[in-house]
Amino acid sequence: MPSAGKRRSAKTGLPPGSLIHIGEKHAEKAKITLCVYDETSFQEREIQTLEGTLPPEGEPVSWIHIDGLHEIRLLEQMGTAFGLHPLILEDILNTEQRPKSEDHGDYLYVVLRLFHEDAGGALEPEQVSIVFGRNWLISLQEKEGRLFDPIRERLRNEKGRLRKAGADYLAHALLDAIVDSYFVILDKFGEKIENLEDALIGRPVPRTLQAIQALKREVILLRKSVWPLREMIGSLGRSDSPLIREQSALYFRDVYDHAVQVIDTIETYRDMLSGMLDIYLSSISNRMNEVMKVLTIIATIFMPLSFLAGIYGMNFRYLPELEWRWGYFALWGVMVTIALVMLIAFRRKKWL
Amino acid sequence: MPSAGKRRSAKTGLPPGSLIHIGEKHAEKAKITLCVYDETSFQEREIQTLEGTLPPEGEPVSWIHIDGLHEIRLLEQMGTAFGLHPLILEDILNTEQRPKSEDHGDYLYVVLRLFHEDAGGALEPEQVSIVFGRNWLISLQEKEGRLFDPIRERLRNEKGRLRKAGADYLAHALLDAIVDSYFVILDKFGEKIENLEDALIGRPVPRTLQAIQALKREVILLRKSVWPLREMIGSLGRSDSPLIREQSALYFRDVYDHAVQVIDTIETYRDMLSGMLDIYLSSISNRMNEVMKVLTIIATIFMPLSFLAGIYGMNFRYLPELEWRWGYFALWGVMVTIALVMLIAFRRKKWL
Amino acid sequence: MPSAGKRRSAKTGLPPGSLIHIGEKHAEKAKITLCVYDETSFQEREIQTLEGTLPPEGEPVSWIHIDGLHEIRLLEQMGTAFGLHPLILEDILNTEQRPKSEDHGDYLYVVLRLFHEDAGGALEPEQVSIVFGRNWLISLQEKEGRLFDPIRERLRNEKGRLRKAGADYLAHALLDAIVDSYFVILDKFGEKIENLEDALIGRPVPRTLQAIQALKREVILLRKSVWPLREMIGSLGRSDSPLIREQSALYFRDVYDHAVQVIDTIETYRDMLSGMLDIYLSSISNRMNEVMKVLTIIATIFMPLSFLAGIYGMNFRYLPELEWRWGYFALWGVMVTIALVMLIAFRRKKWL
Amino acid sequence: MPSAGKRRSAKTGLPPGSLIHIGEKHAEKAKITLCVYDETSFQEREIQTLEGTLPPEGEPVSWIHIDGLHEIRLLEQMGTAFGLHPLILEDILNTEQRPKSEDHGDYLYVVLRLFHEDAGGALEPEQVSIVFGRNWLISLQEKEGRLFDPIRERLRNEKGRLRKAGADYLAHALLDAIVDSYFVILDKFGEKIENLEDALIGRPVPRTLQAIQALKREVILLRKSVWPLREMIGSLGRSDSPLIREQSALYFRDVYDHAVQVIDTIETYRDMLSGMLDIYLSSISNRMNEVMKVLTIIATIFMPLSFLAGIYGMNFRYLPELEWRWGYFALWGVMVTIALVMLIAFRRKKWL
Amino acid sequence: MPSAGKRRSAKTGLPPGSLIHIGEKHAEKAKITLCVYDETSFQEREIQTLEGTLPPEGEPVSWIHIDGLHEIRLLEQMGTAFGLHPLILEDILNTEQRPKSEDHGDYLYVVLRLFHEDAGGALEPEQVSIVFGRNWLISLQEKEGRLFDPIRERLRNEKGRLRKAGADYLAHALLDAIVDSYFVILDKFGEKIENLEDALIGRPVPRTLQAIQALKREVILLRKSVWPLREMIGSLGRSDSPLIREQSALYFRDVYDHAVQVIDTIETYRDMLSGMLDIYLSSISNRMNEVMKVLTIIATIFMPLSFLAGIYGMNFRYLPELEWRWGYFALWGVMVTIALVMLIAFRRKKWL
Repeated sequence: MPSAGKRRSAKTGLPPGSLIHIGEKHAEKAKITLCVYDETSFQEREIQTLEGTLPPEGEPVSWIHIDGLHEIRLLEQMGTAFGLHPLILEDILNTEQRPKSEDHGDYLYVVLRLFHEDAGGALEPEQVSIVFGRNWLISLQEKEGRLFDPIRERLRNEKGRLRKAGADYLAHALLDAIVDSYFVILDKFGEKIENLEDALIGRPVPRTLQAIQALKREVILLRKSVWPLREMIGSLGRSDSPLIREQSALYFRDVYDHAVQVIDTIETYRDMLSGMLDIYLSSISNRMNEVMKVLTIIATIFMPLSFLAGIYGMNFRYLPELEWRWGYFALWGVMVTIALVMLIAFRRKKWL
Repeated sequence: MPSAGKRRSAKTGLPPGSLIHIGEKHAEKAKITLCVYDETSFQEREIQTLEGTLPPEGEPVSWIHIDGLHEIRLLEQMGTAFGLHPLILEDILNTEQRPKSEDHGDYLYVVLRLFHEDAGGALEPEQVSIVFGRNWLISLQEKEGRLFDPIRERLRNEKGRLRKAGADYLAHALLDAIVDSYFVILDKFGEKIENLEDALIGRPVPRTLQAIQALKREVILLRKSVWPLREMIGSLGRSDSPLIREQSALYFRDVYDHAVQVIDTIETYRDMLSGMLDIYLSSISNRMNEVMKVLTIIATIFMPLSFLAGIYGMNFRYLPELEWRWGYFALWGVMVTIALVMLIAFRRKKWL
Repeated sequence: MPSAGKRRSAKTGLPPGSLIHIGEKHAEKAKITLCVYDETSFQEREIQTLEGTLPPEGEPVSWIHIDGLHEIRLLEQMGTAFGLHPLILEDILNTEQRPKSEDHGDYLYVVLRLFHEDAGGALEPEQVSIVFGRNWLISLQEKEGRLFDPIRERLRNEKGRLRKAGADYLAHALLDAIVDSYFVILDKFGEKIENLEDALIGRPVPRTLQAIQALKREVILLRKSVWPLREMIGSLGRSDSPLIREQSALYFRDVYDHAVQVIDTIETYRDMLSGMLDIYLSSISNRMNEVMKVLTIIATIFMPLSFLAGIYGMNFRYLPELEWRWGYFALWGVMVTIALVMLIAFRRKKWL
Repeated sequence: MPSAGKRRSAKTGLPPGSLIHIGEKHAEKAKITLCVYDETSFQEREIQTLEGTLPPEGEPVSWIHIDGLHEIRLLEQMGTAFGLHPLILEDILNTEQRPKSEDHGDYLYVVLRLFHEDAGGALEPEQVSIVFGRNWLISLQEKEGRLFDPIRERLRNEKGRLRKAGADYLAHALLDAIVDSYFVILDKFGEKIENLEDALIGRPVPRTLQAIQALKREVILLRKSVWPLREMIGSLGRSDSPLIREQSALYFRDVYDHAVQVIDTIETYRDMLSGMLDIYLSSISNRMNEVMKVLTIIATIFMPLSFLAGIYGMNFRYLPELEWRWGYFALWGVMVTIALVMLIAFRRKKWL
Repeated sequence: MPSAGKRRSAKTGLPPGSLIHIGEKHAEKAKITLCVYDETSFQEREIQTLEGTLPPEGEPVSWIHIDGLHEIRLLEQMGTAFGLHPLILEDILNTEQRPKSEDHGDYLYVVLRLFHEDAGGALEPEQVSIVFGRNWLISLQEKEGRLFDPIRERLRNEKGRLRKAGADYLAHALLDAIVDSYFVILDKFGEKIENLEDALIGRPVPRTLQAIQALKREVILLRKSVWPLREMIGSLGRSDSPLIREQSALYFRDVYDHAVQVIDTIETYRDMLSGMLDIYLSSISNRMNEVMKVLTIIATIFMPLSFLAGIYGMNFRYLPELEWRWGYFALWGVMVTIALVMLIAFRRKKWL
C-alpha cells in the first residue's frame, strides 16, 4: 500500500541497527506476559522487565509475549538479555518487514504478518515477530490481541503435546494460529465475492466496480504477505537447525500445507475477481446496446410517420389527396401499417 | 470456491491433530468393505470394526474401503490399529486437502480429489484418501460411490496382474480409476464448449456469457486439483520408498502421463474459453454497430425529407413554389431522388 | 480438442495394458512393409505377420513399417516377437498420446504426432509410434501415408550415411521427416495469416474474426504437440542409452534445433494473431465512430433547419415575418448560412 | 527510455575498453573527496589527483569519492593507480550500465542506479559506481549530490561500527543509503497514486489517463533498475570473496531484504495502476451510457409528441378532430399522458 | 515472419547435411578476404579458393571473411580444408538458423543474426556464421556489408590488443560489433516510438494503430533473435573450451552485458507499445463520447422547440394562443428560455 513506502522512508540515512519504531504508535504501555511450563508445571504472570528471563539450559520452557512495540527500552533489554543481533531488533521495530525466517545458530528469528479487519471492513496488517531458542520463545505483537488466547488455554489445561514439547512446537502452534486466522479472512472475502456476484447478475452500478477493485486490491495485499510466508514456513520445515527437532518438523510441514491452501484460495479469488470485471464491462456494453435499441426503434417508427404528416401539412395549391373524402383516414391506415411492419421487422431481428 | 475457506476456518484455534470432520455430514452409517486376496484366493466381506485388520507380514493383501468419514470413532480405531500419525487422521477428515502424497516410512499416505456432477450439472468435489503399506491398503471416500467397482470386479475374476501384485499395484489401480474419471468430466466439458460455440456463432445473449464464465470457473476449479495431482503422482513414480516396487513404478509413470494429458486438455479448454469471451464481446460490439447503422440510415433519409416538407408547410405570403401547378409532384420527385441517392451512398459504404 | 477427452474416456475402468484401439477405425487392412539393409544390401517386401522378424544381433538392420493400427492381433504379435512391455502396446493404440520417449533398456519407444490438412483445410492429427533396438526399428502410423517415401528412396539408392548407420540413425531420419513436415504446415499458416492481414486492412467483417480465432486455435493445437516434441527430441539427443551412438546424438540435436525453430515460429504466429485481434476490435470501434459522425452531422444540420421551417409553419395571427415580401427567400439565406457554418465547424473538428 | 539506446550506439565500432563518456556532460570540474579513517582517526580533504592514493595493506581505510565522470584523465589515473581492468573503466563511463557486481579477485566492482526527481517531477537516473578492495573504496557519481552526506557525518562523529569496520562495511553503508533513497521515491509515487485515485473517483478526463500511463512508465523504469539490483546485492551477500567478511555479509543480506521490499512495493503499484486503467476505461463507458440515456429519453418523449402535432397540422379538408370544440385541449391531455407514461417507464428501467 | 517457414520447408524430405542454400540468392560472386596477422605483421588480400588456407599450429592468425553464401562449391572446399562437420555447412547455408553456438572440440561454431533497415525502413535480417579454431577464424555473411570494416581498420593500425590476441578475441570483436549494431536499430525504434507518442497525444488515426502494430511486430522479431543470442554469448563466456582463453572470457562476458542491455531496452519498448495501444483505444472511446455529446446537445435543444413549433402549426379551429396579440413573441421567449435552461444544464454536467 502507498503508506508502506511512506513510513519506511523516514529511516533514510540512518545507520542500520538504529532502533526507531516505524509504524503507528499505540499509546498504552507495552504489556509483557511470561509463561513458564513443562510437562508437570505451568506458571503465568505479567512482568515489567526482561532482565534475567533467559532460562538456563535444561530448565522449563519460557514463553514471553509482548504486546506493543513502542518501548525501545524493552527491545534493548531483550537484545542484551538474550544476546540478539542488533539487525533483528531493528527488523522487529520496522513493521513493514517481509515475512522471513533467519537462522542465527542459537536462536531462530521469524517475522510475519497478521490481518485484522478494521471498523470499515478494510484489512489492517499487524506484524508479529517470534524469536526462539532451545527452551525459550519471545513473541511480539504491535498491539494487544486475543489470537494466542486459545494456545494459552491449551497450555493451562492440556495434558497433551504442547506441554510436553519444546519451544519449537510452541513456535509451530503460534504459526498455526496465525495461518488459521487467514482462513477467517478468506471466509469473509468469499462472502463478499458471493454478494458481488449477486449484484453483478442483478444490475451492476459503478459502485459494484469499485467494490470489485477494492476487493481485488485486498486480495493482492494478502497475497503479497502469504507468498513469502509460504516460503518461510517451508524453509522452517526443511530446516537443519538443531532447534527444530525432527518430530516438530512434521508439524511445520503441516502448517506449510495450510499456507499452500491459503495461496490456492487467494489465486482462485483473483481469477474470480478478474472474471467479474469482464462480466461487469460486458454488462455495461449490453446495457448500452439496450438503450440504443430503444432509441432506434422509436426513431425508426416515428421519423417516417412524422414525414408523412409533414407532407400533408404542406400548403401547395394543388395537393389532390387533401381534397379526398377519406384522405385523412386513409393516411392513418397507411401510418398504422408502416408502424406494424416496422415492429414486425424489429421482432424478427430479436430487438423486441 | 468461497466455501473452501468457510468450512476450514471452523478449526481456528484448535490444536493440530484434533479430529473434527470438516465437510458435509452424510447421514448414513459409514460402510466398511474388506477384501483379502492373493494369487490363489479372494475374500470380500463387510465389517464393523477396524480392530485386528492389520495383516501380519507375508499374509495376503488386505484392502479396506471406507465409505463415509463422519464416524470419528472409526478413524481413531484406524489410527491405533495401523499406527498412523495423528496429522494423517486430521488430513483425512479435513476434506479441503490439497492433493499430496506423504512417505511415512512404513506406509504412504495419498490424498486427492474426485469430481461428480450434481443434479444441476455443477461439479461437486469429493476427497479420496489412500493409505497403504506392504500388504494392506485403506481407501476412504466421503460418500458411497461406484467408482471402484470395476477394480473389485477385476479382483474377483482376473487371473492377471492385480491379484498377483501387491498393495502398491492396487494403489496404482485406484489412482488410475480416479484419473480416468477426469476424462469423463472433460468429455462433458468438451460438449458444453461445443454447444457454447454454436450459441456464439448464432446470437449470443448475456446468458451465453454467464455460461462461459461458469464453465471457466469449473475449469479453474478442476485445474486447481489436477496440477498438484500431477506432481503427486510424479513423485510416487520417482519415489525411492521400498513400498513401491520397480515394476509398479512404471505403472505410476503411466498414470502420470494420463494426468499430464488431463492438464493439457484443461489448458486447451481455458484458451478456448478465453477466445470465446473475445468473440462474445466483439459480437456485442458488432451488434451495436448494426443497430447504429439502422438508426443512422433512417435519420439520414427522413431528416432532409421532413425538412423539405416543413419548408412547404410554411405560411409565407410569398412562397412561389406553392402556387406552381406541378409543385407537389415535383417535390415528390426531388424527395425520391434524395432518398435514392442516400441509399446508393449507404450501399457504397457497405452499410446495406 | 473436445474430442480428445471424449474418445479417451471410453477406457475408464479397464485395467492398464488393455489393448483397445482408441481412435477412428480406418477400414482397410493394415499393411506391413519390411526393409532389410546394410551397407552392401537392400531388400524391401510386404509381409503378413511379425513373427520371426526380430533380427539376431549382428545382422543387417530391419525396418518394419505398419500402416493402420486397428488389427489388435498384429500388436500382440509385435509384443511377443520383440518382447515389448504391455504399456507400450497400449500407448501405441491410444492415439491421444502426448509426444514422449521412453527408454526400456533394450529398446527405445518414441511417440509423436503428425499433422495432415483435411479437405476443408483443418488440421488432422495422426499419431506415429517408433520403437527401435540396436538393429531393428518398427514404425507405426494410423493410416497409409507417403511421408516416409523419400527415406525409402534414400535407402534404395544412396551410397551414403543412411545405409551405413544403424537403427538410431534411421530413427533420426524419421523424426527429421516429421519435424520437416511441420514447416510445410507453418508455411500454409503463414499464407493464411498474410491473407487475414490483407482482409483486416481492407474491411474486416465478423467472418474475419472467426477466421482469426480458428487459426489461433489451430496454432494452439500445434503448439500443444510441438512443446513436448521438443523436450522429447532434446532428451534423445542427451540420452545416455547405448542404443544412441555418439555420432547419431549430434543428428538428434540437429533435429532439436529444427523443433525449436518450429516453436519460435509458432510463438511468433500467436503474437501476430493476438495483434490482429486488437486491430479487428479497434477497427470495429473506428467504424462505429464513423457511423456516429454521419448521424451527428445530419442531425446537427437538419434539426435547426427543420425547427425554423416549423416556426414559419405556425398559424399565429400576428406573425410579422410571414407578411414580408422577401421573407421566404431571406429564410433560405439564413438556412444556407446555418448549414454552411455547421459544415465548416465539422471540417474544423476533422469530422469531414 | 528511448534515449538509452541512442547514446549507447555512439560507441558502435570502437574497440572495447575505449574510454568515452556516454551520458550528459556536466560542465563543472570533477570534485574528489578523500576520507581516511580507522577506529581512532578521521581525516577528510579535497584532492586533485588520484596518484599515490592506494593505501598499503594494513593502513587505515581510504574512501575516495568522485563527483563527475567527464574527466577521462581521472579515470585513467584511477586505472593505473589501483590496477583496475580497462573494461571497468569503460563501464564506469558508460552511464547506461545495468546494475551488476563483478569480483576481480583483489577488488569488487559494483554499479547501480540512483534516481532523482527533476524540476518537472520526472525521474532522472544517475549511475553510481563503487570499487573497493580490502582497505580502500572509490565511489563515483555523475554529478554532485548530498546522498552520502549522512554517511560522512557518521564517519566523523560515530564511535560505532562504521569507523571500526573495513571497506566492505562502508560499501554496505553506501548501498544501504541508495536503496533507502528508493523508498523516498516510492513515497512520492504512493502520493501520486492516491491523487490519481481521487481524480478517478471524481470525473476522469483524458489527462488522468496520461498521468496514469506516465506513472506506469516511471514504475517500469524503476523496476528495470531494481530487479538486477536485487540480484546484485543478493550475490554480494552470498559472495565467497575474502573481501566481504562474514559479519558484513549479514548486513548485505539486510540491504537485500530492503531491495526485495522495494520490488514488492513496485509490483503492488503496477497492479494498482493496471486496476486504475480498467476503472478509467469503464468510467468512460459509463459516461457514454449516461449521454446515450439522455438522448434516448428526449427522443422517445418528443418524437411521438411531434408526430401528433404534425398530424393536426395537416391540411386535409375532412379532418374531423380539428373542428371539435375541445380538440386542442384534449390533444394536450393526450400528450401529457404519453409523456408521463414514458417517464414512468424510464423510471422503471432505472434510467432516471 | 511467415516467410521463415516458407523457405525452410523446401528442404522437406532431403537427408540432413544436404547443401542447399535456403535464402535469397544474391547474384554477385562471393568475395573472400583473407587477413593474416600477428603482433608484428599484417597482410590482407582477396583470394579465390579456400584450399590450403588452414594455418598450421603456431602460425599467425588467419581471418577469412566470405561475403555471399550461394556458391556451394566454396562451402564444400571449406568443409574439406578445415575438417568441418557436414551439419555445420548445412546450418551455414540455411539462413533461418536460431542463434546458437556449438563446441566441436577443435573449433567452435557460432551463428547469429544481424539486422539492416531496407529502403522502406523495415528490418531485414541477415545471418552471420563464425567458425574459429586456435589460430583461424572464418566469418560468413549473406551479402557484402561494411559492419566489420572498423575491425579491419583496428587490425591494420592498432598496436593494441587485437593484433596480440588470438582468434578467440577476434571472434569477440565480431560479436561485439554485431551487438553494438543492435543499439543503432534500437535508437531508430526509440525515435519512432517518440514520434508515435506525439501522434497519439495529437489526434490518433487508424494509421497510428497500424504503425504501433508494425513497430510491435519488429520489436517481437528482434526479440526472437536477441534472447537466444544472449544465451549463446553467455555460454561462450562460461565455456570451458580450451579455444576460449581465460582473459578473453572476460570480454565475452562484457558483450553478454551489452546483450542483456539490448533485451532490457526491447522489453521496455514492448511495455511502452502496449501502453500506447491502451491510449489509442481509449482515445477512440473519448472521441466517440465527444461525438455523442454534440448529437445529444443538439437533439435535446431542438426536439422540444420543434415540438412547440409543431403545436402552433396545428389547424384546430379553437386554438386560443394563436389569436393572442403577442403569442408569437411570447413563444419565442419561451423557446429561448428552454434553450438557455438546457445549455445551463449541459454546462453543469460538464458536457460543454
